[in-house]
Amino acid sequence: MNTDWIAVDWGTSHLRVWAMQGAKVLGCAQSDKGMARIGADGFQTALLDLVENWLKDDPIDVIACGMVGARQGWVEAPYSTVPSQPLPHAPVRVPGTDPRIRAFVIPGLKQLSPPDVMRGEETQIAGFLGTRQNWDGVLCLPGTHTKWVQVSAGEIVSFRTLMTGELFDLLSAQSVLRHSIGEGWDENTFTDAVADTLSKPEQLAARLFGLRAADLLHNQDKGIARARLSGLLIGAELAATRPYWLGQQLAIIGADAVSRVYAAALKQQGAFVETANATEATLAGLALARNMTRQTA
Amino acid sequence: MNTDWIAVDWGTSHLRVWAMQGAKVLGCAQSDKGMARIGADGFQTALLDLVENWLKDDPIDVIACGMVGARQGWVEAPYSTVPSQPLPHAPVRVPGTDPRIRAFVIPGLKQLSPPDVMRGEETQIAGFLGTRQNWDGVLCLPGTHTKWVQVSAGEIVSFRTLMTGELFDLLSAQSVLRHSIGEGWDENTFTDAVADTLSKPEQLAARLFGLRAADLLHNQDKGIARARLSGLLIGAELAATRPYWLGQQLAIIGADAVSRVYAAALKQQGAFVETANATEATLAGLALARNMTRQTA
Repeated sequence: MNTDWIAVDWGTSHLRVWAMQGAKVLGCAQSDKGMARIGADGFQTALLDLVENWLKDDPIDVIACGMVGARQGWVEAPYSTVPSQPLPHAPVRVPGTDPRIRAFVIPGLKQLSPPDVMRGEETQIAGFLGTRQNWDGVLCLPGTHTKWVQVSAGEIVSFRTLMTGELFDLLSAQSVLRHSIGEGWDENTFTDAVADTLSKPEQLAARLFGLRAADLLHNQDKGIARARLSGLLIGAELAATRPYWLGQQLAIIGADAVSRVYAAALKQQGAFVETANATEATLAGLALARNMTRQTA
Repeated sequence: MNTDWIAVDWGTSHLRVWAMQGAKVLGCAQSDKGMARIGADGFQTALLDLVENWLKDDPIDVIACGMVGARQGWVEAPYSTVPSQPLPHAPVRVPGTDPRIRAFVIPGLKQLSPPDVMRGEETQIAGFLGTRQNWDGVLCLPGTHTKWVQVSAGEIVSFRTLMTGELFDLLSAQSVLRHSIGEGWDENTFTDAVADTLSKPEQLAARLFGLRAADLLHNQDKGIARARLSGLLIGAELAATRPYWLGQQLAIIGADAVSRVYAAALKQQGAFVETANATEATLAGLALARNMTRQTA
């Protein structure tokens, strides 16, 4: 195995690494050493734990994106301001690392009004756009914090973050609804719930406790409750982001399961949706960022 | 001290007890031994820990309301169905108690469509209505799970539960917003936020992450963020419950702090709002329920 660089996606909850030869993946590894789990001096150790076997005597490039560039991260990679290309500036070099690595972190993006921020998605967007000439439209990057991103002429024009994934996790695992939500799914329940809050978003607040009451009174199936909660929340998200997706060219960049759920909701509304694999987009974006470090080295 | 009965409010998170002589409070105590903290055989011990000093040789009546009547409670007190008076049936006797107490639990209420349930609020409503002849209108009982209740001719006609309090707690203490929310308050921020989601409820989902971004980018005050989150959620609740409060006679039964917040939001919308103390309403309702046990004894 001849690794010539290491790709790193370092978020709040996870650390994922890939041994790369150009654009080819030679190996991968991951751990739960996300930003939330490690202190200021734990970054290099957490990384080396995963990549030790890939290192040689000559220093190897490590290119990282995600929350690792926050103020409390490995090195602060200050936000660039939109409108902007997704990767307007070269990654920031991490000082004082182990001599076997040259580590860089990609800056995030900020929007001043309405205030918003991203770290990591800019890299996926760069990777996605890198494989498509002159792509204009709107990107949806679903996850814990879903991003809706307006792209025109190679630039990110505006974006918006919705906490739908985190709300789903909190409500299904920590709230009183946890007693009534379990494994399983029902596609019709999901699409009905999307349509419900998309057309009557003011009813979301009134619908949630109904999931608990329907269990207590009618013994509602816990998988149906799961699909209904997901649909209610995504319907509310689509109501809030209607100007982003209505009549636009759309692509979803995300993990396969969540992308399927968002695509089903959007297709039901008559939207044409392309989906792209999030990991491929991340690796393509990290490769572009690596080229920027070599041009400036 | 001559306690002739004991009033008990036993919810999910707290147990509160009062030593009563008729309608007069002789003493009170509380613990965190709510439903969520105790197993099936822990109820009597949790209660006796607080009331031991009030007991005599002759058995004393203990009248309880709240989640203690759930299936997993001390004794199941099955729901009555609305439309109905708030206390349509006598409290359910707890079998096999310590001989120094005769314990009773008040049944909750259920609504079949849309499915909804309450346990505890029916007692407060009975207490509130007991002091007002021919009161028709809408009651708001704010809390972890806020209830909106339509009352006519002494009956609860319909009701609706909103999880606004629990959502506020989850978002401010468990979500990414916890980093950006702290002590403090700003009344103008609150009323602006209420008006924002009340007029544009579909924007709630898009506003939440803005609280985090405004902290990261503009160092927004954490007390202002607290007022804004509260206002956004209560505005969404008022949008969902508009048919309940618009043009109706309104009263809020709640703890003083949360009642003030709801009253401010409703008054801003031109509603006339009376407020009633929740503890007084609970004790008055428990006293009415005690009379029902004596009539059937």
